[in-house]
Amino acid sequence: MSNNWPKVFRDPVHNLISFADTPCDRLLLELINTREVQRLRRIKQMGVTELVFPGANHSRFAHSLGVLHTARLFLDQLTRHDGKPLAQEPRAFLLAAALLHDVGHGPFSHAFEMVTGRHHEAYTRAVIHDESTEVHRCLRRFDASMPERLALFFDEDADEGRRAGDLPAYLSRIVSGQLDADRCDYLLRDSHATGTNYGDFDLAWMIEQLRPDPDGRRFYLTRKGLAAVETYLFARYHMYRTVYFHKASRGAEVMLKLLFRRLAELIDAHTSLPGISSGLADAFSGQISLTTYLDFDDHTITEMLKSCTRLGDEVLNRLADGLLNRHLYKALDMTGMPLSAIVRFDERARETLEKQGRDPRYCFVEDSASDTPYEPYRPDAERPAMQIYVEDGEGRVVEISTISEALAQLMKTYTMMRYYVPGAFRDELARLMADTKRGG
Amino acid sequence: MSNNWPKVFRDPVHNLISFADTPCDRLLLELINTREVQRLRRIKQMGVTELVFPGANHSRFAHSLGVLHTARLFLDQLTRHDGKPLAQEPRAFLLAAALLHDVGHGPFSHAFEMVTGRHHEAYTRAVIHDESTEVHRCLRRFDASMPERLALFFDEDADEGRRAGDLPAYLSRIVSGQLDADRCDYLLRDSHATGTNYGDFDLAWMIEQLRPDPDGRRFYLTRKGLAAVETYLFARYHMYRTVYFHKASRGAEVMLKLLFRRLAELIDAHTSLPGISSGLADAFSGQISLTTYLDFDDHTITEMLKSCTRLGDEVLNRLADGLLNRHLYKALDMTGMPLSAIVRFDERARETLEKQGRDPRYCFVEDSASDTPYEPYRPDAERPAMQIYVEDGEGRVVEISTISEALAQLMKTYTMMRYYVPGAFRDELARLMADTKRGG
Amino acid sequence: MSNNWPKVFRDPVHNLISFADTPCDRLLLELINTREVQRLRRIKQMGVTELVFPGANHSRFAHSLGVLHTARLFLDQLTRHDGKPLAQEPRAFLLAAALLHDVGHGPFSHAFEMVTGRHHEAYTRAVIHDESTEVHRCLRRFDASMPERLALFFDEDADEGRRAGDLPAYLSRIVSGQLDADRCDYLLRDSHATGTNYGDFDLAWMIEQLRPDPDGRRFYLTRKGLAAVETYLFARYHMYRTVYFHKASRGAEVMLKLLFRRLAELIDAHTSLPGISSGLADAFSGQISLTTYLDFDDHTITEMLKSCTRLGDEVLNRLADGLLNRHLYKALDMTGMPLSAIVRFDERARETLEKQGRDPRYCFVEDSASDTPYEPYRPDAERPAMQIYVEDGEGRVVEISTISEALAQLMKTYTMMRYYVPGAFRDELARLMADTKRGG
Amino acid sequence: MSNNWPKVFRDPVHNLISFADTPCDRLLLELINTREVQRLRRIKQMGVTELVFPGANHSRFAHSLGVLHTARLFLDQLTRHDGKPLAQEPRAFLLAAALLHDVGHGPFSHAFEMVTGRHHEAYTRAVIHDESTEVHRCLRRFDASMPERLALFFDEDADEGRRAGDLPAYLSRIVSGQLDADRCDYLLRDSHATGTNYGDFDLAWMIEQLRPDPDGRRFYLTRKGLAAVETYLFARYHMYRTVYFHKASRGAEVMLKLLFRRLAELIDAHTSLPGISSGLADAFSGQISLTTYLDFDDHTITEMLKSCTRLGDEVLNRLADGLLNRHLYKALDMTGMPLSAIVRFDERARETLEKQGRDPRYCFVEDSASDTPYEPYRPDAERPAMQIYVEDGEGRVVEISTISEALAQLMKTYTMMRYYVPGAFRDELARLMADTKRGG
Repeated sequence: MSNNWPKVFRDPVHNLISFADTPCDRLLLELINTREVQRLRRIKQMGVTELVFPGANHSRFAHSLGVLHTARLFLDQLTRHDGKPLAQEPRAFLLAAALLHDVGHGPFSHAFEMVTGRHHEAYTRAVIHDESTEVHRCLRRFDASMPERLALFFDEDADEGRRAGDLPAYLSRIVSGQLDADRCDYLLRDSHATGTNYGDFDLAWMIEQLRPDPDGRRFYLTRKGLAAVETYLFARYHMYRTVYFHKASRGAEVMLKLLFRRLAELIDAHTSLPGISSGLADAFSGQISLTTYLDFDDHTITEMLKSCTRLGDEVLNRLADGLLNRHLYKALDMTGMPLSAIVRFDERARETLEKQGRDPRYCFVEDSASDTPYEPYRPDAERPAMQIYVEDGEGRVVEISTISEALAQLMKTYTMMRYYVPGAFRDELARLMADTKRGG
Repeated sequence: MSNNWPKVFRDPVHNLISFADTPCDRLLLELINTREVQRLRRIKQMGVTELVFPGANHSRFAHSLGVLHTARLFLDQLTRHDGKPLAQEPRAFLLAAALLHDVGHGPFSHAFEMVTGRHHEAYTRAVIHDESTEVHRCLRRFDASMPERLALFFDEDADEGRRAGDLPAYLSRIVSGQLDADRCDYLLRDSHATGTNYGDFDLAWMIEQLRPDPDGRRFYLTRKGLAAVETYLFARYHMYRTVYFHKASRGAEVMLKLLFRRLAELIDAHTSLPGISSGLADAFSGQISLTTYLDFDDHTITEMLKSCTRLGDEVLNRLADGLLNRHLYKALDMTGMPLSAIVRFDERARETLEKQGRDPRYCFVEDSASDTPYEPYRPDAERPAMQIYVEDGEGRVVEISTISEALAQLMKTYTMMRYYVPGAFRDELARLMADTKRGG
Repeated sequence: MSNNWPKVFRDPVHNLISFADTPCDRLLLELINTREVQRLRRIKQMGVTELVFPGANHSRFAHSLGVLHTARLFLDQLTRHDGKPLAQEPRAFLLAAALLHDVGHGPFSHAFEMVTGRHHEAYTRAVIHDESTEVHRCLRRFDASMPERLALFFDEDADEGRRAGDLPAYLSRIVSGQLDADRCDYLLRDSHATGTNYGDFDLAWMIEQLRPDPDGRRFYLTRKGLAAVETYLFARYHMYRTVYFHKASRGAEVMLKLLFRRLAELIDAHTSLPGISSGLADAFSGQISLTTYLDFDDHTITEMLKSCTRLGDEVLNRLADGLLNRHLYKALDMTGMPLSAIVRFDERARETLEKQGRDPRYCFVEDSASDTPYEPYRPDAERPAMQIYVEDGEGRVVEISTISEALAQLMKTYTMMRYYVPGAFRDELARLMADTKRGG
Repeated sequence: MSNNWPKVFRDPVHNLISFADTPCDRLLLELINTREVQRLRRIKQMGVTELVFPGANHSRFAHSLGVLHTARLFLDQLTRHDGKPLAQEPRAFLLAAALLHDVGHGPFSHAFEMVTGRHHEAYTRAVIHDESTEVHRCLRRFDASMPERLALFFDEDADEGRRAGDLPAYLSRIVSGQLDADRCDYLLRDSHATGTNYGDFDLAWMIEQLRPDPDGRRFYLTRKGLAAVETYLFARYHMYRTVYFHKASRGAEVMLKLLFRRLAELIDAHTSLPGISSGLADAFSGQISLTTYLDFDDHTITEMLKSCTRLGDEVLNRLADGLLNRHLYKALDMTGMPLSAIVRFDERARETLEKQGRDPRYCFVEDSASDTPYEPYRPDAERPAMQIYVEDGEGRVVEISTISEALAQLMKTYTMMRYYVPGAFRDELARLMADTKRGG
């Protein structure tokens, strides 16, 4: 190798991420340098969360690199134990999948899916499949069938066999499962960036304990890896509870969605919206080309927010100004409130607001978020959740929930239910809520 | 204290940053919530550096909070040793200064100063002084004279006495000196975000060893703090060498400046520039209001870059596309080349490019960067550099360079000189450079 | 303060631990410098565990300093919120208790309690109470009643009121409860030293959320602290599972106990034991003075082990050599084995060994270890377990298990049951065990 | 690989250290399990330093594992770039050398060399060469010629060629040079254990930049590794200044040497020393077998210290009690004092002490410590110091001092000179010193 190799990225989570002078790594570097992957630099991994955790500015680009790196750790460990080294082609396929898994994300990720009406996965497939993209051309140069096969890999409607293609099944789970490279990276990265330590777990040890199942359909962890996986699932549980479902950042997310709803309403009504680009306006009608879609990033939306404050629409202005200058909606927590009381409160709150000339649709919004930290195998599940397997005390490979007592509680779905209201109405509505609880 | 207090920010560098229910802390929280401070969320601390270090997305907002926190650590340590607790008012003054020191920064920081022709400090003073800002109104509510005094504090032309106002001199140095809260925070933060560990030093120990000088004019470190300060200066040295002066990120910075230069040229020539907002165009002529200036952030410039790729100007397009999609100019290092050879190479390179119909102003650009890790006291220095003082072995307080041998080398100014050229020309010009060196 | 103050210890877990020029801190420093506290340098916190985790060499001295530091963090937080600053005397009382809580530990901690037949707490009280110790004299100089009151504080038979003396009840729980300074420090420290990260939790945030209960009987955490406490309890759970109950280190502990049993047997039989000091021999008969006891530390036992290898007793030799040179007994795990099978296996194994002329008491040893990560309040509990309290969603202070779903699983007692056998017998006995399981 | 492989050690510095099912790794595991290597568990890496840094209890065993791990990182990187994979045999040779480099250390390391009159390296060679050791037998089983070749490797009198044997020269430098696995590990480990961060540097990046020189005689770092090496050397500089040469720990070291000197004196005079084992007494006369030597560890010396306090010799008692209970000699710093003043002070101090009936040899002891952080190449150097090589800007491999300005200051030898005296005499002698300085 010449001294120009390896190419090394410095990453705050995994430290060094290297690429050697091999066909697989050359492809990965080319993909990283495409405009579609570079665009992920301009999309924050955690969207509006940085309004609450000031360090959470990290990008989907850094995350994508991290997933690629983590997938490589999984892959190297599994193939070392498999005894059969993986050829450059399937290796490249898997790692390209890891790198590209988020390439279709729109600005502020999930909120923007509301605008286009399509899941980001659809755009991921489009980026891979569409001949106009640099990603497509890179993949095709490497192997003419790669774009099609990779797009299929991201097609959730395809059955598992077709999705994985020639890839051994146990390897395809590296990028999609309840223990996969994506989740490992985002827990560690979001934890590092927010400065919480709730997302930390023992990645190195967990990787060390990975083994391919002899039948090749999945991987599992040796008995020594059990505690590490428990910690990983507990990390996930706590990141959801304390960061992803944080009441203030959910409030910001609610505001962004309301703003998109209001814009859609105005566009539908053919309101003139100076400062809102026609491309963006088209996005709301679902009539945009892939090229236009890929032009959008967090910066586009932020500039749009500024325009929104100048349009003279009170609702838009309140929401846009709130997101720009951090005047966030406040939460009223409904946890533990009987349903009948919620219904009564809901009615009374709407009445109160309407009497004051407020539109409850934009200033009294229900938000619920739920998570199941770990889904055990259920024969009747609609779609398989790619469970986690470990060796039990006797050397048999079993689904983790059958032996981990610590997990029992993490298999329940829990839900957070809140109303979000502008700060100015909070005290009044909180009093109304307390009154309703007391049976008033 | 009620359970709503303290208010706590979670920071990835300093962990918890708390605000109690005191007049000083209430002011600080109000300042943090102003639109002018919130705007710093949208300005990256390290500008284009994230093109090279994928983790370097952190904002000036997080940095500003960190400086406030660090200043408070300095302050608490110094006043504890001083024996005289500081009143709420001067405490608020100092910490507000720490928080607001970067509030005038434009998008991409230093590059944008080229556009407006004004230092960011001028805007910092304007934000504090101008009655239209939320910052101004907060400060005035706290103390009618605060805006004026604080603006003066940031006026580098004012003499030191007038700048510090009523503040004890040793405290005013907490926010301005060769060992100050600003530098401490950015070294640690940039190091954390980039994932290098070059910027780490022993902040806790250094703070612990701070003492106010009996004459009240400055602070110093006990003898036990010497090694910690040496490490701090060495950290600074290495962050400059390996991160701030990194050849690829300097290349991106050069490109951004070239792009601004090209835009200025086109605006001067009254070229029509669809997609470039009039506000932004006015910035180039220096004719903008503070309000307009504060509307600009990194997002504005990024959207502008996208517009630039559509204007049909080849130079603009190359630069904007390069910055968006990471096609960076490449460096040719001139270090160690005799001046005569540089002159000859410069001429030959320009000729070569002109023959090919290229404009050397935009594709052959000299860049030099220099730093003096530590400036010792010099009686003839134009302006004082706020040296660092430590106890010597006998208990006397002396300027650090008189006793630290390790620093000797860090007091020299060093310079990095490079040419930057588009990637396509690199090989040809590198050959020409080698040829020139050999006397060709 | 002069520059000689504060006195600062550098700690790998908490970084700086400082002592100021106050009566309380002067007492603490004097206590640290007593021979009884210095002796803790020579007693490893984790005993034989370093045979399994090579980094686990840290001492009870470092832990004791850490507990003092952590107790101070609790104390400062609670009194800040209490509004009533604590006087120097009760402060000194509490922090001395934190520092001295382990001062009576014998070599290799728990194993040695078997030798003397007394709990280490009895020795802790003796060190405080006995006029011959430096600790006693320090305490008495500070306050004549301190030794007696402090000894009472460590008397578990005394009722809570008498134990705490004049100390507000909520403060006394800082050094004794399910959330106390001792546990916080050992989880963090053992985690740091072993290099696992299972013991990490968010100490700073947890402390920040502590509040004194208005009735002064206990402290609790605000609702925002819930996740931090859950992580703390989960950290505890995992440290027990993966480190404290590690099969190899439990094996070493078993061996040390067997060795002590064998020595007792030989001493009882008046066997001549050259190289075993008379002081040590007396310890086995429970006839030793406090001075002699305090002469013992890990080094004494290690030197004794060397002597044991030279005594010509095969059992002693195998155990001592095994502990010195890391030939550890191996575990046979009984988890999940029906009791009847265990009984049958136990019998068959003893027979087999006896036929081979082995003494099963020394080469076939049952070991069980159990833990309850968190004990909720039970009105019928023999003694109170000092539960953890948090605010619920309505601002009421409740016992944590009533609102934390994640804890449900951590309130169960779990047990690990294993047999330990010399390595040479492992395979044979494992086969016998498998055979018994299959009903053989 | 079966699930029993790899064998993994958990290390607080390097995290996981794994051994696979290969001939080389099997040898290494066998060596780790020898009694001679296990003995290193009972020898602290930093000797008496734990009296000053309470966390510094880590053992030479953990360090030896760490050196092995670091050597493997060097080795894998260099052979990957060399293109020629290394055979199992030379690989085993090199890694065994890394593991065993400290195997001959006596208790408290350097101080004990005074007792035996032999360097620890001589014992390292003996452990490898002597047929009675388990280490020897392991090595011989692997390859009959290994013991002899390895012993030669540690023979500093042998010329470089003979020492390295069949090993490529650039690999042999991994375990011996100014940039080697030993130094890398101890800087990181001592830093981690003491809790200072002065010893931290960027190991991963430095390793990544290592290359074998084409002529095979040494390795070097690419230009990108320059900053990492500078940080490494600066880390070394600061660890010496602040930790290894710490005035209190040097004081404890001085006391231990004085105690050994006093014991030697008493033994020479045939004084009866009950409690001091004959083996230990023989060590002072240099008449001990390897077996006896290997019986000594830190625990032996600590128990001996206790005996020393009971012998009725005032000098022994003061020193032993001081080391056990941390009453350390105090330092008087001579830095910057003219030689003539030192001479005069030395005389006056001795006179003063003698008048008081004190023996100056044991209560007024000069101690000087010096270090050269980096020794550049000097044609006239007695023995080569294995300099560090890096690529310069032109791709040439040069000795680092020729291009690193930051190092200029680190190439100077600096010396710390102090007198150590019992605490009781400090003030009086400090006054005398001050008086002498003033010309008194």
